[in-house]
Amino acid sequence: MNKEIKKLSKDKLRILPLGGLGEIGMNALVLEYDEEIILVDCGLLFSDLEYFGVEFIIPDFTYLIERKDKIKGIVITHGHEDHIGAIPFALKAGIHAPIYASPFTSLLIQERLRDHGLADRTEIKTFQVGDLIKFKHFKIKTVSVNHSIVESVALFIDTPVGKVVHTGDFKVDPTPFYGKQLEKKIFEEAGKNGVLLLLSDSTNVEREQHSISESYIYKKFSELFDDAKGLILVSMFASNIGRMGQVFDLAKKLKKKVAVAGRSMDQNIKHAIEAGYLKTASKSLIALDDLNSYNRDKMIVLSSGSQAEIGSALFRIGIGEHRQLSVGEGDLVILSSRYIPGNEKAIGRMINSFFKQGAEVLYEAIEDIHVSGHATAPELKQMLKWVRPKFFIPVHGEYRHLVHHARLAQSCGVDSQNAFIAINGDVLELTENSLEKVDHLEDTRVLIEGRAGNDISRLVLKDRRQLGEKGVVFSLLVRNQKSQEILSGPEIISRGLVHENQEGWLVEEAKKQVIRVVKEYESQLHQNVQLIDLQETIRLELRRFFNKNIGKKPIVLPIILDL
Amino acid sequence: MNKEIKKLSKDKLRILPLGGLGEIGMNALVLEYDEEIILVDCGLLFSDLEYFGVEFIIPDFTYLIERKDKIKGIVITHGHEDHIGAIPFALKAGIHAPIYASPFTSLLIQERLRDHGLADRTEIKTFQVGDLIKFKHFKIKTVSVNHSIVESVALFIDTPVGKVVHTGDFKVDPTPFYGKQLEKKIFEEAGKNGVLLLLSDSTNVEREQHSISESYIYKKFSELFDDAKGLILVSMFASNIGRMGQVFDLAKKLKKKVAVAGRSMDQNIKHAIEAGYLKTASKSLIALDDLNSYNRDKMIVLSSGSQAEIGSALFRIGIGEHRQLSVGEGDLVILSSRYIPGNEKAIGRMINSFFKQGAEVLYEAIEDIHVSGHATAPELKQMLKWVRPKFFIPVHGEYRHLVHHARLAQSCGVDSQNAFIAINGDVLELTENSLEKVDHLEDTRVLIEGRAGNDISRLVLKDRRQLGEKGVVFSLLVRNQKSQEILSGPEIISRGLVHENQEGWLVEEAKKQVIRVVKEYESQLHQNVQLIDLQETIRLELRRFFNKNIGKKPIVLPIILDL
Repeated sequence: MNKEIKKLSKDKLRILPLGGLGEIGMNALVLEYDEEIILVDCGLLFSDLEYFGVEFIIPDFTYLIERKDKIKGIVITHGHEDHIGAIPFALKAGIHAPIYASPFTSLLIQERLRDHGLADRTEIKTFQVGDLIKFKHFKIKTVSVNHSIVESVALFIDTPVGKVVHTGDFKVDPTPFYGKQLEKKIFEEAGKNGVLLLLSDSTNVEREQHSISESYIYKKFSELFDDAKGLILVSMFASNIGRMGQVFDLAKKLKKKVAVAGRSMDQNIKHAIEAGYLKTASKSLIALDDLNSYNRDKMIVLSSGSQAEIGSALFRIGIGEHRQLSVGEGDLVILSSRYIPGNEKAIGRMINSFFKQGAEVLYEAIEDIHVSGHATAPELKQMLKWVRPKFFIPVHGEYRHLVHHARLAQSCGVDSQNAFIAINGDVLELTENSLEKVDHLEDTRVLIEGRAGNDISRLVLKDRRQLGEKGVVFSLLVRNQKSQEILSGPEIISRGLVHENQEGWLVEEAKKQVIRVVKEYESQLHQNVQLIDLQETIRLELRRFFNKNIGKKPIVLPIILDL
Repeated sequence: MNKEIKKLSKDKLRILPLGGLGEIGMNALVLEYDEEIILVDCGLLFSDLEYFGVEFIIPDFTYLIERKDKIKGIVITHGHEDHIGAIPFALKAGIHAPIYASPFTSLLIQERLRDHGLADRTEIKTFQVGDLIKFKHFKIKTVSVNHSIVESVALFIDTPVGKVVHTGDFKVDPTPFYGKQLEKKIFEEAGKNGVLLLLSDSTNVEREQHSISESYIYKKFSELFDDAKGLILVSMFASNIGRMGQVFDLAKKLKKKVAVAGRSMDQNIKHAIEAGYLKTASKSLIALDDLNSYNRDKMIVLSSGSQAEIGSALFRIGIGEHRQLSVGEGDLVILSSRYIPGNEKAIGRMINSFFKQGAEVLYEAIEDIHVSGHATAPELKQMLKWVRPKFFIPVHGEYRHLVHHARLAQSCGVDSQNAFIAINGDVLELTENSLEKVDHLEDTRVLIEGRAGNDISRLVLKDRRQLGEKGVVFSLLVRNQKSQEILSGPEIISRGLVHENQEGWLVEEAKKQVIRVVKEYESQLHQNVQLIDLQETIRLELRRFFNKNIGKKPIVLPIILDL
């Protein structure tokens, strides 16, 4: 991302999605006017390259770093990882700006900063939902929306070119457990007064049925908990405070005790209580170690690990390797969360494990025990009709979601050329009358290895893929530096190449190939002709040899040590 | 699998699932009585370890190899890879028995044998659906069932202990495109005369709605094809001859031309025509190279690659890298197949690619354009009520499917202790009055690398995982064999370790660690004390060093070359 980007036009609002448009994750949107930049959200994407050491993917912050004095604030819509998870990396990269977040969201951000040793690196300015945040060119009103985490907000942004509404992640829940109903009047009023641009959540645009209210879960859990004869193990996203609140309320009502398994859930419950949620928790919360003091039908365990992450509490309970808790005949396991794409197989294996332990398992495919936090097509239509924007950019979605959402906008009256499909890296400029793509940044993704946050380059990733798929062979020769004659070797060592039964003969045969090359080399040596490139010739010959004998070309590293 | 297995009891029927009970794939069921073994199906499982070079997984044939003279036949229920794909490996492992298969299935098997250079290794005895296959102790009647491939059969097996019914993969389709309706009378009649054991397909036991008929697809495709303004690209499993037949019929009716993209689909169409299917194909089939001679709205392309396999025709068209075909604005892509678990993300990316090219894409989440080939709960209940078995073993399913299917059987009147959940490797024995597990084989899976069929051991897989996740470091020293002094080195080479920007200083620092160890070693050398294990010490020190500096321990291979 080193190319020269088109200069910001005067009197235009620049909009630059660094992430979230082309994937569900790593949301980060740049708003830039004159000498001011505001970043909306700063999230990460969990990687499906974890086999190659890539833990997650974050937006490339180069554009921001090159303009870091202009950045006046990072405004966070809610506390999910795909909206806050990249904040520590942005700070480490050199971005210094106050972070604006709601009370609960602030606690989550603070914790992440502490994890990275960045607690004092920046200021978190906590706003109450409904507050107005004022910058020079931007006035941002935070408006409560419904979602699967408390204190989710939409942003109503007054800009010099007109009003921009960013929904954040949202759904329309008539009976949320925490927070207000989405205040449609505020959206309608904005629509009446004229909204220049709407950016709206596309995650569930493919779904035709209105999303189900969180209160359905209360009813459903109430029935299930009532009927349970043994321990109840409920897994959910560790940030779903509303759903936990319902479990605590039910536990109180049914006189059951609740223990918590999993560090992230433990922490989030602590934060939620600090922020004023989970008021009934104190009545029923016990330590996991104290579970055994109660009858099995009096126990509820809340657990993280709903994505079958290796090492998570739920995963370990599933395979019977959790220190404090095991489940069996008579117990009930409830997986109350969606499957993040890519995790289906691992979750399926975990469900099988629980069944093998004898427990009953309820999961998506057989029982409605989860409701989504994202608006579906009818709600998205509703939003478009309330806000009636002149321009529309679908956000938070893979490309196909953006396409479908743009079509939906057209069906709701947005001019077809004004329903604009943008992707990560598109540099857009907005005026009262126009929305244009003026440039594009390539490669907006940075692969991150581990919490420490080391970058992984495309080159290293390619090497790892080859190592993992085919293994590695190391060939070693010692040469007399002066005479150029071979003193010792070849030694050949391989890893991950073939079944250990085959390795012996294969390595012996490979040595013969190297010896053949060395002989050719030595004969040339005495003939005083142009020498072959010994190292490269060995590499090519060995790759050819392995391809012929085992049908693949491993990474071959020939070393010649001059003595 | 080297332990001594309990000897077969006299007058008992041994039933040993080598695969398919605990996963959807690699179906293989051993039936053994006295001196006779019959193997029902011999399939493979596509691996989700392809990152580590594991292409597929097959059953461990050790039990059969140790009893290979007893094997009198391999009886195949239908031509899907999870029922025939391991046949070449069984033959290579030394199993010699005639293979019994229907005409179309025989053609598919012959092709696989040719691919492996095994065309003449065994005899394929072709049966007509409905035929009786006679062995000494087993009389097997083949009975037509509906499924997503033509010539699928259930097996009605008369054994010395009683009648065993094996459904194979099936659904109940009132209007199949090819073949008869499932002949429920034959099942009912068997039920009336007494069935000792039913083995039944569990794949879709979690679904509550009756499966949809293949004729629905005809209606749906008819509407879509009628409306299409551009090229129509339809992908499906290359073995779904019935669905292809419908496309050819519609093409004829609508005067469109059909071209085929993908080798497997090409071959299967050839086999299907040879077996008497796809009679309307000749009217409309053209070469892919000739597509350009027709108007775009007259073109239908059938393509394999529905699972977004890298390199498949569909994948390449999606990313705009297919030699003969590209799609764009106005074209319609129809993904008419299920997502095999584990492939969801790759398929999602492919859908996004097609949208980026401007094509319209119809897929599972937004349109009903595929019907499953497996019976759902109501059909499975129907089957249980027709057959009324004394004993029941659910087959073809992950553990959770087997659990649900066993419960379904109980709800249909099978005694709870007679609805038997068995898993791969369970050695079961059946008599007129009892079904018992008498032993268990561990590790019934063999990981296979590439078509050549090399085994991958657990050890090699572990190495590859580590190489892929963390990379590899070689450290090299040359030592005087006599004096034990270090002559040269250390040289350090890494692959896949860290970003290339960091590699330089990291390797230099690592060398310092090795030099430190070497110095300690050399000082010991002159003190005449017990020497440290130089190689192991270097390995441990380097792993410690990397863990401290980059937060992970790569594979470290220290080499000391004595000169």
